[in-house]
Amino acid sequence: MEYDILVIGAGILGLSCAYHLKKNNPNKEILVIDRFRAVAQGNTARSNALFRNTFTSPDNQILSDTSIDFYIDMQKSAVDLGIRKTGYLWLQSERELSLNERHVQKMEDEGIELRKYDRGELERMLPLMRTKLTSEESRLMQLEDVVGGVFGVKCGRIDPDKLSRFYAGEFVRIGGKIVLDTNVKKLIVEPNQPLGIDGEPFVWQESRVTGVVVEGQMQGEIRAGTIVIAAGVWNNELLDPIGIDGHVKGKKRQLFTISAGSSPDLRSLIHNKSFNAIGVLPFVILPKSGCYVKALEENNEFWVACEDDINRPFINVPERDLETYKAEPSYFEQNVYRILKEYFPPFENSKPNQMWAGLYSYNTLDMIPFVFVESGMIIAGGGSGSGIMKGDAMGRIVDAVYRLGENGEATLYGGKKYPIHKLGFESRQVEREEWII
Amino acid sequence: MEYDILVIGAGILGLSCAYHLKKNNPNKEILVIDRFRAVAQGNTARSNALFRNTFTSPDNQILSDTSIDFYIDMQKSAVDLGIRKTGYLWLQSERELSLNERHVQKMEDEGIELRKYDRGELERMLPLMRTKLTSEESRLMQLEDVVGGVFGVKCGRIDPDKLSRFYAGEFVRIGGKIVLDTNVKKLIVEPNQPLGIDGEPFVWQESRVTGVVVEGQMQGEIRAGTIVIAAGVWNNELLDPIGIDGHVKGKKRQLFTISAGSSPDLRSLIHNKSFNAIGVLPFVILPKSGCYVKALEENNEFWVACEDDINRPFINVPERDLETYKAEPSYFEQNVYRILKEYFPPFENSKPNQMWAGLYSYNTLDMIPFVFVESGMIIAGGGSGSGIMKGDAMGRIVDAVYRLGENGEATLYGGKKYPIHKLGFESRQVEREEWII
Repeated sequence: MEYDILVIGAGILGLSCAYHLKKNNPNKEILVIDRFRAVAQGNTARSNALFRNTFTSPDNQILSDTSIDFYIDMQKSAVDLGIRKTGYLWLQSERELSLNERHVQKMEDEGIELRKYDRGELERMLPLMRTKLTSEESRLMQLEDVVGGVFGVKCGRIDPDKLSRFYAGEFVRIGGKIVLDTNVKKLIVEPNQPLGIDGEPFVWQESRVTGVVVEGQMQGEIRAGTIVIAAGVWNNELLDPIGIDGHVKGKKRQLFTISAGSSPDLRSLIHNKSFNAIGVLPFVILPKSGCYVKALEENNEFWVACEDDINRPFINVPERDLETYKAEPSYFEQNVYRILKEYFPPFENSKPNQMWAGLYSYNTLDMIPFVFVESGMIIAGGGSGSGIMKGDAMGRIVDAVYRLGENGEATLYGGKKYPIHKLGFESRQVEREEWII
Repeated sequence: MEYDILVIGAGILGLSCAYHLKKNNPNKEILVIDRFRAVAQGNTARSNALFRNTFTSPDNQILSDTSIDFYIDMQKSAVDLGIRKTGYLWLQSERELSLNERHVQKMEDEGIELRKYDRGELERMLPLMRTKLTSEESRLMQLEDVVGGVFGVKCGRIDPDKLSRFYAGEFVRIGGKIVLDTNVKKLIVEPNQPLGIDGEPFVWQESRVTGVVVEGQMQGEIRAGTIVIAAGVWNNELLDPIGIDGHVKGKKRQLFTISAGSSPDLRSLIHNKSFNAIGVLPFVILPKSGCYVKALEENNEFWVACEDDINRPFINVPERDLETYKAEPSYFEQNVYRILKEYFPPFENSKPNQMWAGLYSYNTLDMIPFVFVESGMIIAGGGSGSGIMKGDAMGRIVDAVYRLGENGEATLYGGKKYPIHKLGFESRQVEREEWII
């Protein structure tokens, strides 16, 4: 079993890498393996699957903006990716408005399409929202009144399953191979010039990763000229044992769905005509605490969650079974719900009818992904909660690294050039992202 | 049990922090705790305990150079720290000489005192060294001939136990308190404004670390206004559970001692008069593979080791008992010994008479330490194998963070100013270190 390129991980990142690699290296034999029984069954499937081009970091901007363009054009020309251009609405308190002023200015200067609303406008556009909080509870919680909003236009949601199946289908159509239900037990490190001595490689030998040992659908050893590590939060499971730092840490995130049922108020919250052409509530981020609401008009439901900061563990090497990471009803009740109902009274007495957890793959350093070459591997990861929306650009960059090396330039969708080394770490050159939910 | 400052970790870093904090904040109650039964019994005790000011990064330069000055002056004025100014001798192959030329030039431009030797000079100064390798084994191993050497003058070794006891003694003398045999079970995260509700802190509350739960000599909860996290490789054990990234990974390193016994050649290797005023072999780094030799004339012995790169695991959360990490006789035989005897034939047939392992605390990103403020804590670490030689500067920086915040400037020994934010990560500003063994 020998391939030119082996991609580990059939989530959105691995599939985008595989597709762009095969497209630009049609004569190379490329294999994608994944431990799940279908593509994108790990954290891609558990994602909130939103997209936005509203980032302060020019790197995040170009990675997301070009990926979004590609997704939108694909949906126009060929295939339904479940894209709904709802926009993102950041509701801002007085404090946040002033804290974020320079970030918003920076994004506007970079040409990102933003709209700004004051409290009066928001009250007209979102009549079911409470901008002035008066309850005893909101005072105790120190929640903050809404005084304005920032609206990102080129933002919305996408169907991660459709997107993954699109990449997988195209990859296979042009000759790529995907094998599922195949788990990597370990990476094989070998000397570049083996001597056949027991115990190789020794420290005086130049060594690199030449393959993997697998179990499951495929068994034994798979060798490859280049191995693309695109296993998301499981990158550490592969890389820690050979002493390579993947620069990611996992953290649990939870999502809760709330049905609008027959509630006229909740239904009217979903079908809001003030913000976008499709007449759907934008993705709304509430002040403080990163609590947010996504409307899915096709299901008559909302997805709600929070982005917590301190006090929940980092996971260095996650369990393989994501069911280990359970959503917690108390997390909804004590955190999400308490905030939500203060700003949106129609959610009063709501209970989640579904909930699940997934793991973010964090690059905690600058919240911008990594792509670098190391010992026969191209290592990619660190989506930090925005991996899907940058997936296409990341795939193109990994392909460019393969063809041109780390000093090359990737051509992103639409023809924009991106110097690869910026996402590496030996000569990393990125601005820390400031516009985080 | 309430303190102004609690320092977790009584290794060199924690003790230097504690001393400088107490010295500059004499009215603050400061407690140092450590899980071992004496100070500096973790990786400080297992270190090779060398010092050098030869770094390409200006940050590493100033951190080490000022610390070395302090250690040397203390030894001159007051207390034996076991400093032996042997110098460092990097032996260079043709390939390395050309690869490293710009690094050496950079260090010279920065005013670091270096001497350069050619092959002829080295052969005269180190007559027991082989510069041209001719054996079949060295050819198979692709070892490289020595064509020159770079000698760092302000370099040598120090006794980590004496240094730690010096800081501990001074700290206690001026009123600080150290409690040993006390293990931190967890950090306590609490809301800044507690409501007394079960399950606090919630995500809508501002929270911070207010104390620790301990077991052992001290038991129960210790509260502190500021908690200094200086537990080296165990920083992740403290920080992972609350979702803070300490930016370190552990990696096992091994040391082997070889007695010179009555071998005239080995004895004459130790007592070399060509390099330094004390007539002792400098710390010698062999070409390729980072194999090195330290002479301890007082014990009539050598300490030898290698710095391996790929194929040995990173350890995210190390075991508490360092005896878990054993030195491996085969590591000596297959790696260190094979290289050593080619360059230094007197080591032929040597066997280690002692061996031990310790853990490096790596910052894999740029190999320069981190100091940053996070949620009531000052987090310091990432010595990356050069923690002791930067220990004094790190302690002064942590004290300056405490008094002045991350935007302040630390005054290092000798009066040099150092902007604290450079070692943080929100506005980190360091050059990746290139002169690594």
